[in-house]
Amino acid sequence: MRRFHHNDPSFETDFAAFVEERRDTPEEVDAIVRDVLSAVRAEGLEALLRFAREFDRVELDEDSIRVSAEEIAAGAAACSQEVRDAIAFAAGRIRSYHERQRPADLRFTDEAGVELGWRWTPLEAVGIYVPGGRAAYPSTVLMNAVPAAVAGVERIAMVTPPGRLQPAVLAAAQAAGVTEIWRVGGAQAVAALAYGAGPIRPVDKVVGPGNAFVTAAKRRVYGVVGIDALAGPSEIVVVADGANNPDWIAADLLSQAEHDPAAQSILITDDEAFAARVEAAVETQLSALATGEDAAASWRDHGAVVIAPLEESPRLVNLIAPEHVEFAVEAPERLSDRVRHAGAIFLGRHTPEAIGDYVAGSNHVLPTSRAARFSSGLSLYDFLKRTSIVKCDEAAFAALAPSTIALAEAEGLPAHARSAAIRLEQS
Amino acid sequence: MRRFHHNDPSFETDFAAFVEERRDTPEEVDAIVRDVLSAVRAEGLEALLRFAREFDRVELDEDSIRVSAEEIAAGAAACSQEVRDAIAFAAGRIRSYHERQRPADLRFTDEAGVELGWRWTPLEAVGIYVPGGRAAYPSTVLMNAVPAAVAGVERIAMVTPPGRLQPAVLAAAQAAGVTEIWRVGGAQAVAALAYGAGPIRPVDKVVGPGNAFVTAAKRRVYGVVGIDALAGPSEIVVVADGANNPDWIAADLLSQAEHDPAAQSILITDDEAFAARVEAAVETQLSALATGEDAAASWRDHGAVVIAPLEESPRLVNLIAPEHVEFAVEAPERLSDRVRHAGAIFLGRHTPEAIGDYVAGSNHVLPTSRAARFSSGLSLYDFLKRTSIVKCDEAAFAALAPSTIALAEAEGLPAHARSAAIRLEQS
Repeated sequence: MRRFHHNDPSFETDFAAFVEERRDTPEEVDAIVRDVLSAVRAEGLEALLRFAREFDRVELDEDSIRVSAEEIAAGAAACSQEVRDAIAFAAGRIRSYHERQRPADLRFTDEAGVELGWRWTPLEAVGIYVPGGRAAYPSTVLMNAVPAAVAGVERIAMVTPPGRLQPAVLAAAQAAGVTEIWRVGGAQAVAALAYGAGPIRPVDKVVGPGNAFVTAAKRRVYGVVGIDALAGPSEIVVVADGANNPDWIAADLLSQAEHDPAAQSILITDDEAFAARVEAAVETQLSALATGEDAAASWRDHGAVVIAPLEESPRLVNLIAPEHVEFAVEAPERLSDRVRHAGAIFLGRHTPEAIGDYVAGSNHVLPTSRAARFSSGLSLYDFLKRTSIVKCDEAAFAALAPSTIALAEAEGLPAHARSAAIRLEQS
Repeated sequence: MRRFHHNDPSFETDFAAFVEERRDTPEEVDAIVRDVLSAVRAEGLEALLRFAREFDRVELDEDSIRVSAEEIAAGAAACSQEVRDAIAFAAGRIRSYHERQRPADLRFTDEAGVELGWRWTPLEAVGIYVPGGRAAYPSTVLMNAVPAAVAGVERIAMVTPPGRLQPAVLAAAQAAGVTEIWRVGGAQAVAALAYGAGPIRPVDKVVGPGNAFVTAAKRRVYGVVGIDALAGPSEIVVVADGANNPDWIAADLLSQAEHDPAAQSILITDDEAFAARVEAAVETQLSALATGEDAAASWRDHGAVVIAPLEESPRLVNLIAPEHVEFAVEAPERLSDRVRHAGAIFLGRHTPEAIGDYVAGSNHVLPTSRAARFSSGLSLYDFLKRTSIVKCDEAAFAALAPSTIALAEAEGLPAHARSAAIRLEQS
């Protein structure tokens, strides 16, 4: 854990260097991923079955690679009523929030008489990667599949590594409107979704988090299909004054730290004594935490405490451009309104970030690694695309043609010019 | 040029195979690009100057790498009045169209008492790649820079390979609100924008078309910065009945073909005799075209004529998912309303696609290579990002906490559960 003090003469340079630190995953995986993608593209299902045998030690065939409707129903039923209720509650809230993102079509006639506009349509088929093992989260399914379903995507294909399927994940798939589930993980799953493989038909976009292999595969298939952002380790900044309960703030910092040793938690406070109480509470809570090993590594290697006037916090947050930021202060908007770069903002002392991971309704798929400077969380927009529309009658065309011809000629594109000129000459 | 006839028993399979044909650029460039990016990242300006010497045969230094305000003004002034007027006309129309895309912020309180919403903010700095030589187009500058300026981006940095700067390009940069221009091209330009190099400060997103090296570089820096879509060769589908002037339709097909030997032009018509007249007109026009060599190669290798009932055209267009589609028919909406996958639709006999390249107001940066299945043309959204907002008071928190705890526990994330539970226990 690093400590930064706003009064330190080297604060600005030290803090800037800290913000720029990369928490990269190694690039060597890319060569392996390239070969996996080529194999799936060339051999289809055969390659998937071979990788399942080699990497996952599982024998699959054309039938068993698909999770059957019976398995999904049985798995979902094995889930406790409490968790099933929580999933339904979360799915409903995510649905309501994303319904409000539906953009409007537009059609208008401008002063030149040109009819212009655009039309939004849903993607046809989307693939969702859901990691296996410990990181198989029902909330991943909900946050990726519900917006797709709200957008009107017909096929929502989930892929997840072979192995025991968590009942809660199956219950979430059912609640979210996933239409098919395949037992395939890693780069080969991304390849199957992008190119198609045996019974897995290709999709139009691949979303969902994964390890370094999955991320490298998404980067490589981008263009053949769409992808969501490339997910990095999770981040939280908590801006807190000394009036907070230090246990609450410590818990919030650890809620991100437990995700991954590469996760990052940063406290910004103007109260040095409070910071010390939070640090002590972090240590106490760590010792009782089942995920304490990862959380301790994250806090040790990437955690930070910044002592600075709270008025400075929006500027510091903008430098960090974090995935999540909490403002645990009175009248939080006074500060948060000055934040420009953040994936999501949580306001007040009773809004721990974990609320947003599950049931607030907003999406928990958010830009990491400073990507909030240029991108947004997952939304309805990720499952819609826009077609622009132009319509000229003869008069409107005549108003636009001369400039078109002048520019096409300036660009050395005579056929462009001709397609306008010929309509002027021969009409 | 290929001919397809709807009555042919193998039509569906032949046409599907044609649609799937890839017009790829080779992948070997990627290794070179990787080394160029590493060099710029490690050495900054020094690497840029060395590449300018090696690749562009130009000696530059820290000062001359920047195009001065005087050069921009002088270049713009050297542009003919006709072209300057056309640029101003186009810029104004592009501005008006994109102004209408500004999305609204939202803040609402739901039935559980949770305050939710989102806020849109512009990116701070954007880099625009403008190719050099024959492909240095003022319209590229307008279509990329005007939406950025409308969005409120403060820094709009243009990069273009060393060499003579086209007056029209400089005039467009001035009209569009470009704030700085640098003499650097290729993968090294993308690296300079992403990582910063000498006087070139890093940006948040890189947009604009380029060759295979530029595209490979954009794919690699994606994540460090945002990128627009990876541009492929241009495409047009023209749906036309026999009542059209075949010369007009031939001109429209050639207006895409002249871009690039890999461009693709497809005519869909229900009138075989009309198709023959268009084919003849294409040959006649080709012989008189200054760009005839590229256009002829494109038409020969990737052109197609499809004879099919016009009622079938929306389905065929959706299979192609083209960058551009024209409906040169009466009551074009009857057909075009059934198109789901297309970058832009041009309606009626007096709306040649070239209008959309320059002055319609809609953006000419559109998804190619079937990417219209999952993505949209460049827009205001590319230069804005959305921050989600969540705010709970104690009662709203109490309504959300139990489900949060249930899901966090089901996911094996005890610190997430604790950050909610601790606020219930200690409040």
